[in-house]
Amino acid sequence: MRYELYYWPGIQGRGEFPRLVLEDAGADYTDVGREKDGVERMRAVMRGDGGAAFLPLAPPFLRAGELWIGQSAAIAAFLGERLGLAPSGEAERLVARTIGLTIADLVNEAHDTHHPIDVGAYYDQQQDAAAQRAAVFRERRMPKFLGYLERVLERNATGVLVGGEVTYVDLAAFQVVEGLAYAFPRALARIRAELPRLHALRDRVASRPRLAAYLASPRRLPFNEHGIFRRYVELDP
Amino acid sequence: MRYELYYWPGIQGRGEFPRLVLEDAGADYTDVGREKDGVERMRAVMRGDGGAAFLPLAPPFLRAGELWIGQSAAIAAFLGERLGLAPSGEAERLVARTIGLTIADLVNEAHDTHHPIDVGAYYDQQQDAAAQRAAVFRERRMPKFLGYLERVLERNATGVLVGGEVTYVDLAAFQVVEGLAYAFPRALARIRAELPRLHALRDRVASRPRLAAYLASPRRLPFNEHGIFRRYVELDP
Repeated sequence: MRYELYYWPGIQGRGEFPRLVLEDAGADYTDVGREKDGVERMRAVMRGDGGAAFLPLAPPFLRAGELWIGQSAAIAAFLGERLGLAPSGEAERLVARTIGLTIADLVNEAHDTHHPIDVGAYYDQQQDAAAQRAAVFRERRMPKFLGYLERVLERNATGVLVGGEVTYVDLAAFQVVEGLAYAFPRALARIRAELPRLHALRDRVASRPRLAAYLASPRRLPFNEHGIFRRYVELDP
Repeated sequence: MRYELYYWPGIQGRGEFPRLVLEDAGADYTDVGREKDGVERMRAVMRGDGGAAFLPLAPPFLRAGELWIGQSAAIAAFLGERLGLAPSGEAERLVARTIGLTIADLVNEAHDTHHPIDVGAYYDQQQDAAAQRAAVFRERRMPKFLGYLERVLERNATGVLVGGEVTYVDLAAFQVVEGLAYAFPRALARIRAELPRLHALRDRVASRPRLAAYLASPRRLPFNEHGIFRRYVELDP
């Protein structure tokens, strides 16, 4: 099975959550948006052309043979459950889905720190509102979400968020910690001591052989100021 | 099986999406937050007390015997798939999950029209930013999302969003149209002619016998200015 991941080239963005699952599982996949004419093929699916029995509003989306699925957290769950990066029992799978969508909420809020008014306009055009929203995010929302993940780790007591082995939600937790460390290094440093288990999980995920190889490869794009996690120093004083 | 739905009393909120599935399916369920001491029982689960092998960050969440799941869209999908309100095949189930999460994105954006800066503060404290964000929502984001649902209906050509029968995502589409008709009646009226299939779906869902009985019951709380969809006339000029 060769998976086809559809996402914008040039950024990690919301495509990175399913991409980490594919990479960590050693899956055979094509990153369609990064191929020649890939963005046009992606747009064709979103227009309803191109033969897909599926009409997504936005990337990322995934083709797995005859199956199609969109929405970052849903794709990551689907792949995790197929590729051995999810718990095996139903109860734990439902817990993983819950945590995965909670991390997706945090990702949305991180995005809205630089786009609190209009996702279709530039950051410069909403900088005052961004300063206000980023302050709330740094002081209350980010600590709330990361503190939640820390409590889940403390409670599970196996070093991972669900069950006893690394799953797709641990990869998502890694990614969100990396992204926040890029966008809000000063704010994250201030609460780091309260998040020992989450940082240990981050290190554990980063040292997995296939994931470490991916992170060192050119396929892992650097964070930049076009994606979700952006470094604007004025938003992280 | 008696399901236990945990959500804040007093608002429809994000609890309404799983609640509509329970009601339409005629399921046996308890709306825990509306019971005596229910909010305290809900908070106990969120604190990690109360015996649940599950730690949600926020309501809604659901108990189904030994199973627990949180996140509105995930609960609705779980219930839909168990209670006959989801497609039966895997391909269509994945499409339904994609659409369900896309509707959840629209719900988030509708919420942020009145809370663009700080979810923990009052609307009055962020009214200027809200006016700006609501304008973008009315003019671009709401038409984009609802136009997407209309195109999905046109393409599927069965009167519902996925497959041939009403599923949990059709109930979610009903709810979001109802909510937007409450919060943005003028803006929605301006694009209504472009959304004939979506409004026909809304009517079809509303006339389903169990759902109609629910909507006429006191269990269906009225929309109000504490929930996601709020009527502030200045945001819908």
